[in-house]
Amino acid sequence: MTLILKGNIISAEKYGELNIIENGYLIANDGIIEGMYQELPKQYENYDIIDYGDKLIMQSFSDMHLHAPQYPMLGMGMDLPLLDWLNTYTFPVEANFKNTDFARKVYKELAQKLIKNGTTRVAMFSSLHKDATLILMEELENAGVTGYVGKVNMDRNGGKDLEETTQESIDETIDWLKKANFKHIKPIITPRFTPSCTNELMETLGKIAKENNLPIQSHLSENTNEIKWVKQLHPDCPEYFDTYQKYGMWNNKTLMAHCVHSSKRELQSMKDNGVYVVHCASSNQNLMSGVAQVKKMVDNGLNVVIGSDIAGGDHMSMFDCVADTIRASKARNILDNWETGFLTVSQAFYLATSAANKFFDELPGFAKGNKLNCLVLDDSKLISATKLSIKERFERCIYNREDGAIVSVYSEGRKVY
Amino acid sequence: MTLILKGNIISAEKYGELNIIENGYLIANDGIIEGMYQELPKQYENYDIIDYGDKLIMQSFSDMHLHAPQYPMLGMGMDLPLLDWLNTYTFPVEANFKNTDFARKVYKELAQKLIKNGTTRVAMFSSLHKDATLILMEELENAGVTGYVGKVNMDRNGGKDLEETTQESIDETIDWLKKANFKHIKPIITPRFTPSCTNELMETLGKIAKENNLPIQSHLSENTNEIKWVKQLHPDCPEYFDTYQKYGMWNNKTLMAHCVHSSKRELQSMKDNGVYVVHCASSNQNLMSGVAQVKKMVDNGLNVVIGSDIAGGDHMSMFDCVADTIRASKARNILDNWETGFLTVSQAFYLATSAANKFFDELPGFAKGNKLNCLVLDDSKLISATKLSIKERFERCIYNREDGAIVSVYSEGRKVY
Repeated sequence: MTLILKGNIISAEKYGELNIIENGYLIANDGIIEGMYQELPKQYENYDIIDYGDKLIMQSFSDMHLHAPQYPMLGMGMDLPLLDWLNTYTFPVEANFKNTDFARKVYKELAQKLIKNGTTRVAMFSSLHKDATLILMEELENAGVTGYVGKVNMDRNGGKDLEETTQESIDETIDWLKKANFKHIKPIITPRFTPSCTNELMETLGKIAKENNLPIQSHLSENTNEIKWVKQLHPDCPEYFDTYQKYGMWNNKTLMAHCVHSSKRELQSMKDNGVYVVHCASSNQNLMSGVAQVKKMVDNGLNVVIGSDIAGGDHMSMFDCVADTIRASKARNILDNWETGFLTVSQAFYLATSAANKFFDELPGFAKGNKLNCLVLDDSKLISATKLSIKERFERCIYNREDGAIVSVYSEGRKVY
Repeated sequence: MTLILKGNIISAEKYGELNIIENGYLIANDGIIEGMYQELPKQYENYDIIDYGDKLIMQSFSDMHLHAPQYPMLGMGMDLPLLDWLNTYTFPVEANFKNTDFARKVYKELAQKLIKNGTTRVAMFSSLHKDATLILMEELENAGVTGYVGKVNMDRNGGKDLEETTQESIDETIDWLKKANFKHIKPIITPRFTPSCTNELMETLGKIAKENNLPIQSHLSENTNEIKWVKQLHPDCPEYFDTYQKYGMWNNKTLMAHCVHSSKRELQSMKDNGVYVVHCASSNQNLMSGVAQVKKMVDNGLNVVIGSDIAGGDHMSMFDCVADTIRASKARNILDNWETGFLTVSQAFYLATSAANKFFDELPGFAKGNKLNCLVLDDSKLISATKLSIKERFERCIYNREDGAIVSVYSEGRKVY
């Protein structure tokens, strides 16, 4: 099956550098990118072409941290700091997902919304409920979303409605892994965060991850009170990350959300072990967690990707998350007395697309051999004073799009919108 | 003409306090609010009622600082600081508005977009072009937007395509004032900012404002390089604001956008003279101007209102601007070592609505005697885990709305959307 898309092709080939092919061709065979061309190669002359005219064809997004069961509370409780917000809104809302009918309704809508917004890859937290987690995976699979979903583990500090026993948490995780057989959505081991998991549970989860060669996701150094709490719970660990590392959950398939207050040693360990920082700009601002040193982390060679962090973040669209990331980097620059710089549009777009490719064992941009994940954007309704370059149009669409600007989405070569 | 709206009525009656009437009645006579009621008063029993069911009826917004001719560059050039951004994008784009056909096209769309987004009052910059300014006023009038528009004055530092001679600037301003006869859109004197206006022009503008009892709008202490420049241009003035005050443009009908780097003395003078701070959170972040002390300014008793500052700001919707304002206040709190607090949703909403009422000689909220400016919002498509209170629904809609959530808009009692 050969797919040939024609239009203005934009990809983040290197950090901060766009590859732009005006009126070019993007070709995939069986969902795998074959190449990008300014002129159609001769061997494809008799193939059908999907011609998007003057529209922009760009990489679709990877949302590397979001909480599916928090989707029904998007935009709520934003006047509260992290730990209060968790107890007042998040945990009670998540508890509702023991109801599978409710889960089905919410997750169907969430999955469709992700695709509609051009998010084709995710690393996502479910709740602790196994059945709802399987429903979530199924709905994402049906909608065309790819990536990872984790049944959340929490055997302490969740309150009466959102806590498992240690044994339940282990048994349910093992059973979930047996049942989680989907083509495009895979399981990821997901201890909520250190305060939610006993040592015994952490140890077992680390073993399960190792035995099954599974990736891991959790939270790290989001909030100063959270860090103090972890310190109380683990007087044996000098720093927060040690509580993951000691249980074997600290490698180049580990995603750690936030890292707002990570120490030099913590960041160095992330770099040394290839652990990913998932930067969540909107959530860090909303919950007043702080302003992460996103640019510095990238400059220092860490793996940095982006998450919407729904519902600490309030933007589902990764276009908005890219803009939030830029704004947060500017806030950081101001905090640093204008000395550390900020992320440009191209740099932040790279983090939301190509940087995550690495986690999925791919090269940046629309590289040959990558799966074809892209979106098609129509910006023709936006008024302009002069003829804009493709780069200007690209930059504008990060900040400014009409409703319905995304007209098509391809996920691993499948037209899903 | 009596108008009776039924629904969940929400208004910012006091700073930080919402007045919520569930399933209540909002009544206006000839566009003037008569009252809000839980039960319909007997004398209205036989009147028609517009029943919005479970929808939210709330104050519509006042956008107290935006640049109409920058609308075609919304979201562009965001990687540049203020003065570079002005010279690379803003001034060349604004120069296009000597073309009245182009102006008509842009301003018609802008006016309709404002209304569609629930912005019924503005204080707006046009460009220096008189004809385009009259077209802008006409299009706003036709769409149902009310408030103030200013022909911009700039007789220095605009470059060859965007500069008047001093005499031209004065003559055109006088002629514009003669022709600016609209019912709902009034003129406001608008020196762009001190670097754009010679002393002679400033002096004349001050006189024109005084003689015609006109309000004034300009920019103040937005950016550190701008402040240095003003200091070079006015070695006689200890601070930026002195350059306005000395020409009689510093009173309780003066709007000053930004005030990011205003000194204690500058802020005290604003308070003493009733000058309004127009806080532009999004623009301050995008152009990396800095993080204004918005909460502190409010707490200290200054008049603080909100502007989208299109196109330094990238959000046309004042809902988004309210969220940006909250986020900026949180960034400020972090900068201040978590010591100065942040704006709550209710507080920021007040700044975007009721705080501006004062500039229009009205009381806060849906006070009796105010003109009826409101919007009706349908949030029924948003999924929720539990039954939400009206306050929770209100808070959510600041951050999270479906496309087309605003279903009706009333401007001075007229249904304009």
